[in-house]
Amino acid sequence: MQIAFIGLGNMGAPMAINLIKAGHSVKAFDLSQDAVAKVVAGGGQAAASAQDAVQGAEAVITMLPASQHVEGLFLGDGKLLASIAKGTLVIDSSTIAAATSQKVAKAAEAAGIDFIDAPVSGGTGGAIAGTLTFMVGGREAQLERARPLLEKMGANIFHAGSVGAGQTAKICNNMLLGILMVGTSEAIALGVANGLDPKVLSEIMRRSSGGNWALEKYNPFPGVHENAPASKGYAGGFGTDLMLKDLGLSQENAIATKASTPLGGMARAIYAAHSVGGHGGEDFSSVIKMLLKKG
Amino acid sequence: MQIAFIGLGNMGAPMAINLIKAGHSVKAFDLSQDAVAKVVAGGGQAAASAQDAVQGAEAVITMLPASQHVEGLFLGDGKLLASIAKGTLVIDSSTIAAATSQKVAKAAEAAGIDFIDAPVSGGTGGAIAGTLTFMVGGREAQLERARPLLEKMGANIFHAGSVGAGQTAKICNNMLLGILMVGTSEAIALGVANGLDPKVLSEIMRRSSGGNWALEKYNPFPGVHENAPASKGYAGGFGTDLMLKDLGLSQENAIATKASTPLGGMARAIYAAHSVGGHGGEDFSSVIKMLLKKG
Amino acid sequence: MQIAFIGLGNMGAPMAINLIKAGHSVKAFDLSQDAVAKVVAGGGQAAASAQDAVQGAEAVITMLPASQHVEGLFLGDGKLLASIAKGTLVIDSSTIAAATSQKVAKAAEAAGIDFIDAPVSGGTGGAIAGTLTFMVGGREAQLERARPLLEKMGANIFHAGSVGAGQTAKICNNMLLGILMVGTSEAIALGVANGLDPKVLSEIMRRSSGGNWALEKYNPFPGVHENAPASKGYAGGFGTDLMLKDLGLSQENAIATKASTPLGGMARAIYAAHSVGGHGGEDFSSVIKMLLKKG
Amino acid sequence: MQIAFIGLGNMGAPMAINLIKAGHSVKAFDLSQDAVAKVVAGGGQAAASAQDAVQGAEAVITMLPASQHVEGLFLGDGKLLASIAKGTLVIDSSTIAAATSQKVAKAAEAAGIDFIDAPVSGGTGGAIAGTLTFMVGGREAQLERARPLLEKMGANIFHAGSVGAGQTAKICNNMLLGILMVGTSEAIALGVANGLDPKVLSEIMRRSSGGNWALEKYNPFPGVHENAPASKGYAGGFGTDLMLKDLGLSQENAIATKASTPLGGMARAIYAAHSVGGHGGEDFSSVIKMLLKKG
Repeated sequence: MQIAFIGLGNMGAPMAINLIKAGHSVKAFDLSQDAVAKVVAGGGQAAASAQDAVQGAEAVITMLPASQHVEGLFLGDGKLLASIAKGTLVIDSSTIAAATSQKVAKAAEAAGIDFIDAPVSGGTGGAIAGTLTFMVGGREAQLERARPLLEKMGANIFHAGSVGAGQTAKICNNMLLGILMVGTSEAIALGVANGLDPKVLSEIMRRSSGGNWALEKYNPFPGVHENAPASKGYAGGFGTDLMLKDLGLSQENAIATKASTPLGGMARAIYAAHSVGGHGGEDFSSVIKMLLKKG
Repeated sequence: MQIAFIGLGNMGAPMAINLIKAGHSVKAFDLSQDAVAKVVAGGGQAAASAQDAVQGAEAVITMLPASQHVEGLFLGDGKLLASIAKGTLVIDSSTIAAATSQKVAKAAEAAGIDFIDAPVSGGTGGAIAGTLTFMVGGREAQLERARPLLEKMGANIFHAGSVGAGQTAKICNNMLLGILMVGTSEAIALGVANGLDPKVLSEIMRRSSGGNWALEKYNPFPGVHENAPASKGYAGGFGTDLMLKDLGLSQENAIATKASTPLGGMARAIYAAHSVGGHGGEDFSSVIKMLLKKG
Repeated sequence: MQIAFIGLGNMGAPMAINLIKAGHSVKAFDLSQDAVAKVVAGGGQAAASAQDAVQGAEAVITMLPASQHVEGLFLGDGKLLASIAKGTLVIDSSTIAAATSQKVAKAAEAAGIDFIDAPVSGGTGGAIAGTLTFMVGGREAQLERARPLLEKMGANIFHAGSVGAGQTAKICNNMLLGILMVGTSEAIALGVANGLDPKVLSEIMRRSSGGNWALEKYNPFPGVHENAPASKGYAGGFGTDLMLKDLGLSQENAIATKASTPLGGMARAIYAAHSVGGHGGEDFSSVIKMLLKKG
Repeated sequence: MQIAFIGLGNMGAPMAINLIKAGHSVKAFDLSQDAVAKVVAGGGQAAASAQDAVQGAEAVITMLPASQHVEGLFLGDGKLLASIAKGTLVIDSSTIAAATSQKVAKAAEAAGIDFIDAPVSGGTGGAIAGTLTFMVGGREAQLERARPLLEKMGANIFHAGSVGAGQTAKICNNMLLGILMVGTSEAIALGVANGLDPKVLSEIMRRSSGGNWALEKYNPFPGVHENAPASKGYAGGFGTDLMLKDLGLSQENAIATKASTPLGGMARAIYAAHSVGGHGGEDFSSVIKMLLKKG
């Protein structure tokens, strides 16, 4: 299939390459020439512009940093939607506001284009390995149309609901993840302040009612999980500033829907203070540093 | 073995009966005659007093409401420690302050008595079924001495560290449980405010990085888990006021150790407000009511 | 002076009438005919549309509910800016996002129109009495041009900085107000739980380092301040839902600027839960109900 | 009058000296010889022990670090109460748990001794200048008996209620102070992140509904108040660790009375994290550093 892939960062580039490996023909565009070069090295074609990329494409996949980029690309000055052929499938895998997904989808629908939101979780590791999780918002038939492509890039595909629901599911999940990471860090730090061994305490909680994903795979205390960022100086992984962005999206959504999210709001404030403290580029599990006494 | 069991509430009585079923001889005491009668009906002997119960006992098990009861029993006016024979094993399964466990253990040690703290999780269901989780603080040899008895009452036995560590592990775990229940409730309520199906969203988060014990077994939204309290009008289960007590213990500990537990403190305040709102007797997952819009 | 006044709600109508009393000629518009009728009864002229209102006006004053209304009015379909004469002064007294004020101001400047943001505090009482506080964003000369009009409607006029700064100052102030009201409520509720007299405790804190505006004029406990909403069943005053809106604006701003506002975020969540609990229409000091034990 | 003064730290020593200046005869004791020497240099007599100090005293004043010291002194091993003559007035100015004040007062009453709690605010500056604020718990007649002495050491004397009420009033006030210092810091940091001048914003809020003691006298932003610790590198003033102690007392009280104090709990967690971050010895207004972006 002829695919246009727009947005070739740490996530987008390996996703595009996985599609190429699966036999698809990918025409790739990014504002950075270096990013395009990586996909070309992986067997893709370079597009001179987003408009160029979508010429002849049966499917368009976008992976952009924020709401304004998605809205700008499809509806703004260049108005890419006008260049996309009727009947094309557009999969937006950016993590953005649900309201933006819905706005673009409405314009797409009017133009006879299938637009779904399909944000991912799983990080750059999952993007390279092709084991991402997709949370999809759109109609059943639209998802089925996208599924063969999504399966080349990911291992789990969830249908969250109508368009925008993928974004909502993702920010709900990531808000909960932020809460669990801070909460798990607090529990371990409290145990350590009482002289407990963090490994022993983590194992007890993991197998008890405090059990959660962080205790399972991503322990914030150095040395508990050998392959977790905490054991590698908090390098790699999912950065503090990315978690801060997602917690911001969840709080914007909570404000718009008048929802009450006390721990979600607190987690955002804690990650914002952690970023102010100079840890924005470290893995988000480094938040435990704010809580652990030295020495 | 001749065992004294003191404190025969909803947890203590079935624990005592499981020991009897396993062939032990149990002499039981409680301030409530009705409570004693239940254990007698289960094959136990009634003791006229705590002093009476411990006469001739090789092991003493206590299950009391709070720190002051444990300290009062062993060190207070009656000074039960003085009535317990040298060499006896004392297992305190109450959930109390670690500092109190340590204080009683020190006095016990001076009297040649083995005292360990072994608080439980698993609720009244686990107490009846004999599938409790014990978190034990004490020396390795003391735990091994207690193990044959603990195995009659529970399915998981964790050695958390030296005396008091069982209490610390339990409050760390339950603090984390309180946080994840509120956090999970927030995430579901936010999804519902956006029109998502709570079952679908819960399943997505359960299998993603938001996964935790509440999403696995104890979903706070009615109808997601058929057997969870949420699907039974929030009856049974682990009451709001019990969670409030445990969160209070965790915060007292955090104050004493100068630890920072922002989400733990917030969870306590939320459960306190929920109790003030008249929900103290409902299951602790009913906290989602504070967040869900009506109608 | 010929003035157009658009947005004649509980705040806008009495503000317009104060300008009329001061001798100005006011042409008033609102989507509600009833609202227009009130200003006509006060001596104003009815405008058939916003476009009609601004014809011949030397100054335009707007008082609208939210960002989208201000942006929609000036830049949207009707594009009111195009109907306003070059050289006109526009005063927007709505409480909206600073970014929206700046966006409209930029378009106004390009059209040769002076646009300033001048949100108010002081409530409907202050609007009627002409004692509002204005927090103004704009150039010094623009503020001086507006001052004679603002003085007819308010008693305090603060120059917060360049355009948008009035909005920022207002949401900073109102975020702090929300925090102080919840904090004061907590302190009083804690004292009452310990048997203290709320009047005595309030007076001690008012004269000590806990002193703040709520303790001075707006005590949340019934009966301490005779004229405060708390002493009138929490009727009138500044509603919970209005405080929730302002706290939402402050949090949206914090997200956009990556600022950390832990207590501000928590205050928003508390007011959201209070609104969910059915108290959205009561004065915002009723938040103390969430904290005070009954009986 | 012959007065025993026990506890001669940064607060106690100048308080004792003010009594001497007023013509009283003070016999002073502290575990530190240096501390005693200061009061002797100020005209006091050195006592060899607490027992020695109270011999012949008509009034006993204590100023100790924490609950355990007060309980230990009066009821513990030395049991000072037994050495104090019937009819003596005891004024405890330590900041401790209300429950401890009540426990000691009960034992004192049984021994025919008048015991009141009278914690202070106003810092070392107020202690030296004799302008402290006393918050007194005890009977009216007991307070009147103490008043002539309190007036030599302080400028404001509040009767909070029965014994223990002074302590409760103080922790309610200081909890509120902690909240308003963090809240004021958040509001200023948010304004600064938006480009506002912190002086201008502070002045607007001070005169609006965000007005509070910190904006009045103790602005956390450097340079706004010339004499505030913020303008002196956060040296002097009321230390972060002292605020953390008082917030801990308020939370222990909230736990004991099952009160909900969301912002108070959050303020404690924030100060605990600030202390963990190495700022325990700086003035408590330095908490704004956690929120302000660098550069």
